[in-house]
Amino acid sequence: MPPKEAYDWLKAHHVETSVLESMGALLHWDQSTMMPGAGHGHRSEQFAALAKLTHERRSDPRIGDALAACGGYWDERDPIGVEAANVREWMRAFERATKIPSDLAVALARAASDGETAWKRARPDNDWKAFQPYLDELIRLRREEAEAVGYQGEPYDALLDEYEHGETAATLEPMFRELRHEIVNLLDSIKGSSRAPDPSILNNDYPTSAQKQFCRQVAQAVGYDLKAGRLDATAHPFSTRIGPGDVRITTRYNEHNLSEALFGTIHEAGHAMYSQGLPAEHFGTPSGVSVSLGIHESQSRLWENLVGHSAGFWRHFFPQARDFFPCLKDVSESAFLFAVNEVQPTLIRVEADEVTYNLHVMLRFELELALLRGDLSTTDLPAAWDEKMRDFLGITPPDFAQGVMQDVHWSAGLIGYFPTYSLGNLYAAQLFEAASKALGDIESQFERGNFSPLLSWLRENVHIWGSRMAPRELVRKATGYEPDSGALIRGLKSKYAQLYGI
Amino acid sequence: MPPKEAYDWLKAHHVETSVLESMGALLHWDQSTMMPGAGHGHRSEQFAALAKLTHERRSDPRIGDALAACGGYWDERDPIGVEAANVREWMRAFERATKIPSDLAVALARAASDGETAWKRARPDNDWKAFQPYLDELIRLRREEAEAVGYQGEPYDALLDEYEHGETAATLEPMFRELRHEIVNLLDSIKGSSRAPDPSILNNDYPTSAQKQFCRQVAQAVGYDLKAGRLDATAHPFSTRIGPGDVRITTRYNEHNLSEALFGTIHEAGHAMYSQGLPAEHFGTPSGVSVSLGIHESQSRLWENLVGHSAGFWRHFFPQARDFFPCLKDVSESAFLFAVNEVQPTLIRVEADEVTYNLHVMLRFELELALLRGDLSTTDLPAAWDEKMRDFLGITPPDFAQGVMQDVHWSAGLIGYFPTYSLGNLYAAQLFEAASKALGDIESQFERGNFSPLLSWLRENVHIWGSRMAPRELVRKATGYEPDSGALIRGLKSKYAQLYGI
Repeated sequence: MPPKEAYDWLKAHHVETSVLESMGALLHWDQSTMMPGAGHGHRSEQFAALAKLTHERRSDPRIGDALAACGGYWDERDPIGVEAANVREWMRAFERATKIPSDLAVALARAASDGETAWKRARPDNDWKAFQPYLDELIRLRREEAEAVGYQGEPYDALLDEYEHGETAATLEPMFRELRHEIVNLLDSIKGSSRAPDPSILNNDYPTSAQKQFCRQVAQAVGYDLKAGRLDATAHPFSTRIGPGDVRITTRYNEHNLSEALFGTIHEAGHAMYSQGLPAEHFGTPSGVSVSLGIHESQSRLWENLVGHSAGFWRHFFPQARDFFPCLKDVSESAFLFAVNEVQPTLIRVEADEVTYNLHVMLRFELELALLRGDLSTTDLPAAWDEKMRDFLGITPPDFAQGVMQDVHWSAGLIGYFPTYSLGNLYAAQLFEAASKALGDIESQFERGNFSPLLSWLRENVHIWGSRMAPRELVRKATGYEPDSGALIRGLKSKYAQLYGI
Repeated sequence: MPPKEAYDWLKAHHVETSVLESMGALLHWDQSTMMPGAGHGHRSEQFAALAKLTHERRSDPRIGDALAACGGYWDERDPIGVEAANVREWMRAFERATKIPSDLAVALARAASDGETAWKRARPDNDWKAFQPYLDELIRLRREEAEAVGYQGEPYDALLDEYEHGETAATLEPMFRELRHEIVNLLDSIKGSSRAPDPSILNNDYPTSAQKQFCRQVAQAVGYDLKAGRLDATAHPFSTRIGPGDVRITTRYNEHNLSEALFGTIHEAGHAMYSQGLPAEHFGTPSGVSVSLGIHESQSRLWENLVGHSAGFWRHFFPQARDFFPCLKDVSESAFLFAVNEVQPTLIRVEADEVTYNLHVMLRFELELALLRGDLSTTDLPAAWDEKMRDFLGITPPDFAQGVMQDVHWSAGLIGYFPTYSLGNLYAAQLFEAASKALGDIESQFERGNFSPLLSWLRENVHIWGSRMAPRELVRKATGYEPDSGALIRGLKSKYAQLYGI
């Protein structure tokens, strides 16, 4: 096969696979939002048939032949050119897929499914011992996967690479160590402050119908295109790209709390704006796909925290919020801003504030790294968890459900996934700082309800690139330097110094 | 391959194909109800990729080999046994698919798509000449298809057989001739009656939110299982089976008219109850699939007309309707019943009443038969249409949009499809008469809101059989005699004699 023909075949094959795979996104969205209860059995059949089909297509041996034949088609001098990047990423994915023996892949899928089921059953009973053998099996299998895939430093790197290509335990440990040190110090200062927000401002009467309208209005105002999306309600909020022109988000409404739905909406809108900014003409190829979990999370956290919790944002939106919610009539803008930015160590990661959130993530990173290195056994994991909670956050979980068993991730075999949450925060701060430098007084743009300069900057510097560069390279190209924790630390310190007068 | 192994392979292959195909039902449902406008382009890609995949699977040459190898596996003495029926239907479908050359299949798909586009453009302009060449091409191609597939009587039979297996022009013509004669007479008597309903009763203030609740309540009361379904709003109502446990319906609300949404809901609920009654354990095989368009329509029309327009039904539901709709406060039950059963010749098939509806269908049947036989050219079709409208219904269309160009069917190449609508009415009446005989005083069961005996009877005599018998055989087994127009004529005569005092 001549190189051009091989390349064209690879492209057509992968695009068709992605189109078929994208039906899975609709199956999932529908299952969470619309499907009648009795539809679950058939929906599982649909997922299974589609997974079989796409697995066959992604491991089709003709991919290997075409990859071998397409060399020389693209311009070698442009490693981030569309063709070069596509071929590089197709090769990486195909190699990873073919290195994992199919019986290991099947065992992993089964262990993940069994693990999640066991976790769901054991968690309400605080029954660590019932869940432990499933976690042991998952760790064993994922170690096996790491050996099959290969690594330079240590087994953990092979798992992390799947979620955040190019990162390793060795790149993360120093960044996270510094971040943890600074955050623990900041948290101490905050605890020592005499100022405190009034959290009852947010826990008041917020009718769901008004929240729905307000959330739509905010999502649209920051740049989420509802003509190419939808906002629905689900128990567990998410964002999903069904295809170009169809990127949907969900949120969860609590009529006695405004934060949950509102910041959830902005978070998911951040994910969705990334998806809406991916180049549609490259759909189904690496150049048209989001690059990593960390970069995805950077977009959601940037909009949720650095935009949605900022003074400029609320100078614009508070008057509108007051029109929607009569309970805000006698609340001042500054009291409201302080309330949404309350810092308070809590037990549950997904409910944590912007400052303490990263401590939850680093705790998990350190523990899973120790598990993979063999420095910690699952028998000792619950005690290690509690010790780190005391160490980092100064609180002790009353039970496993609110401690070591709170997250679904490990039960589904997702080891190496957690650090991408903090990487997201770190990238977000670094990108936001660079955008602010480029765009001038960004807060006063927010104040005027003008979010499009920021979105355009993100489009040009992040979204449009798809997976043409590794995350680290993308951040360097956008900001001028390698990812580090500096911008995040600077941002948190300056913001909370002002709020808490420290 | 030993027979059992061949059979098992056929079953697994077809079930998997059906599971994949069922994602198309979700794509379609979502497109009509939920999808954002900008999602259309990608949705077309999804439909195309899925169609390609399922076509490949349905014409996989291994099917032919397995069919040849599985002979003798089932009990020859039981032709409607599950295995015998499955193999017979797999063979019939595979033969039809392989007899049609693939370039003809492609040409037909393209002509159907082009035809529909041309129709949509030409119809608002009343531009028959712009549409005519597309229809000519479709007729030419479908004649070619008929020759490829083969027939015993005439080419039309090969097309009709696809929608209503076992029926031919020769079986339909005498039934329809009798039906037309009787209905034209009945219509004359009705026109001569001094009684007339007050149609303003139904064209009043019917708030959409109340209609939504009432429609749900009625659909559920007659037996549509909402735990395994949904009711949503769409421009063009439909029912779709996404899989066992997930059969959804839609309707259209008009706040100044109750009939549209309500009878639309009951009609689609009738389709859906058939789908919900198909044996889930046979999903993806002929034994678990609806048998024909006519039988499907018999279920929707039975519930819409013979139940939903009956005196017993309204004795039960009218008090509830009054609670929902204040405009019914001073309306009597008998005036309301007469209003929903008004007979009035009109131009548009889909808006026609129970009596005149069949005249619209028979007009189309006679015209398409003449076109296929070469007795009529498309140049003369509009004049022939208008002549039959005068002849059957006594009215003349003012333009093509309300005449020969009103339906989408021919523009998409659906020739031989229309008669299944009248077959549905005819089967419905015959099945309803048999059920009434078996169940005793069915009207007084309705009066007490008890619809489950009728639904159970339909489950046992129709739904549960899937496609194990041809439609004609199914009706004979359920009612004791071959389909004819007797029950429909008897039912209409007796009902309208009472209402109109004729």
